[in-house]
Amino acid sequence: MTITRVAIIGLGLLGGSIGLAVKARDLAIATTGWDRDPSVRERAAERGLVGTVCERAEDAVTNADLVILCVPVGAMGDAARAIAPGLAPHAIISDVGSSKEAVASALAEALPGACIIPAHPVAGTEQSGPDAGFATLFAGRWCIITPPDGVDPAALEALSDFWTALGSKVELMDAAHHDLVLAVTSHIPHLIAYTIVGTASDLEDVTQSEVIKYSAGGFRDFTRIAASDPVMWRDVFLTNKGAVLEMLGRFTEDLTAMQRAIRSGDGDALFDLFTRTRAIRRQVIEQGQDDERPDFGRQHPD
Amino acid sequence: MTITRVAIIGLGLLGGSIGLAVKARDLAIATTGWDRDPSVRERAAERGLVGTVCERAEDAVTNADLVILCVPVGAMGDAARAIAPGLAPHAIISDVGSSKEAVASALAEALPGACIIPAHPVAGTEQSGPDAGFATLFAGRWCIITPPDGVDPAALEALSDFWTALGSKVELMDAAHHDLVLAVTSHIPHLIAYTIVGTASDLEDVTQSEVIKYSAGGFRDFTRIAASDPVMWRDVFLTNKGAVLEMLGRFTEDLTAMQRAIRSGDGDALFDLFTRTRAIRRQVIEQGQDDERPDFGRQHPD
Repeated sequence: MTITRVAIIGLGLLGGSIGLAVKARDLAIATTGWDRDPSVRERAAERGLVGTVCERAEDAVTNADLVILCVPVGAMGDAARAIAPGLAPHAIISDVGSSKEAVASALAEALPGACIIPAHPVAGTEQSGPDAGFATLFAGRWCIITPPDGVDPAALEALSDFWTALGSKVELMDAAHHDLVLAVTSHIPHLIAYTIVGTASDLEDVTQSEVIKYSAGGFRDFTRIAASDPVMWRDVFLTNKGAVLEMLGRFTEDLTAMQRAIRSGDGDALFDLFTRTRAIRRQVIEQGQDDERPDFGRQHPD
Repeated sequence: MTITRVAIIGLGLLGGSIGLAVKARDLAIATTGWDRDPSVRERAAERGLVGTVCERAEDAVTNADLVILCVPVGAMGDAARAIAPGLAPHAIISDVGSSKEAVASALAEALPGACIIPAHPVAGTEQSGPDAGFATLFAGRWCIITPPDGVDPAALEALSDFWTALGSKVELMDAAHHDLVLAVTSHIPHLIAYTIVGTASDLEDVTQSEVIKYSAGGFRDFTRIAASDPVMWRDVFLTNKGAVLEMLGRFTEDLTAMQRAIRSGDGDALFDLFTRTRAIRRQVIEQGQDDERPDFGRQHPD
């Protein structure tokens, strides 16, 4: 099957970037879009995030070959019910959510019998909303597709081709394994960042002003992640509870071991860990998953 | 007093950047330098990090008005003993270390009677060595000076003026308070980053290859910090044990609260924290302590 019309439900960072990428890459694909928030719809139309911004969800999906739900994972069921009346029988329903078992269940319940293929492009920034999207967000990033058992191979191929056309590299994965992998590469890092920023701002003996002034010592990196969309992230933790708690347990065990090493003055244990982790950074850069410039390429103006 | 000659002991990221900044800003200051490692001395001379690279520490400090020790905090005592024979009686001895109580003690013990004024420019990148330095590293960043009781006011003013001339903003602070503030804004963030990168690379059910491929979900930010110099960071944790353990205790309490919120499905607790932390990011940017561009200005090539 050929995808010639894509409907984007939710016009924030991810939805907007999909629309802009389709346009920038001159794909022969028409885009329509809808957002629950009227002010987002208005801004999306001004920026031209999609070809047509519709006033009703069901109108946005009319005749769409592919519908991509770009809403917080806790809102997937509601979004699916909103589009149900307008869906074409052959339409592929996909999404961009960060937890995949919960989304698969929510969509299967809301749209029984529909062709549902959840997906997760591993890309983003700390910004959100209709002004945040840009056309190259997915270039060189991985998109993980978690096809359910018995998926239509032609539909899976079409979805895979769509993400490849946006510049992504596509990987197929079991939903449960996705949730475990992303717990460690994304969800726990966000939880830790949110937590340390909270800890720092609650101290009595160090003022918030000091925390901000001296943030260039490392803390500021965490503030970027901790500026991510609160609703999106609340929903991720509520819908990927099992994997997040398991990975959090591993992390706190390891942190306790480091605490013990510091308390006992075990410099070798510290040095060993600090040396091993350098190799991981090198591989992240070698595989094109981060900017190789020092300090992420931050500007150091004179 | 006027500083016309500065000796830099240790020619890595920090030492090299000081030398380059003095040159780039056309300050009327001669620079000399020494490093324990002959290959670093050679590379420092090639890059022109200082005016004169000396073969012996005591020669580098001859006639210097200011000596800055740019070595790991655990090596400060040795470095101080190495320069002792060559020091001019009026020389100010300072440093760039990340823990200040321990450095103050080590220097006082190694150089009794000397004019010692510890300092800490809160600036750096994940890179180290003689190729890592650049002239604008300190521009717009804070330099915390922790003068001991009874410091010579003229010497303190001269050191403060020197850092201001490099583009830094100077703040005076008690050494113990510095160590507490930096524990939360720098040391704990590094410890957490090192630990999560270690945790992720040790898992059995998620491969290291998967961790690297999908690192753009947040993990890659932590790999940058976890690529920092292992010796430097080992020494920081060994010399700022008390403050680090106290702040680590606060962090793990808060993380446990988040764990409980996730386990019990308390979305409001998660949402509240995730909303509060956004404000901190805004202030970090407003105060010029981070790049305002999304994703730190990382490149997103097509």
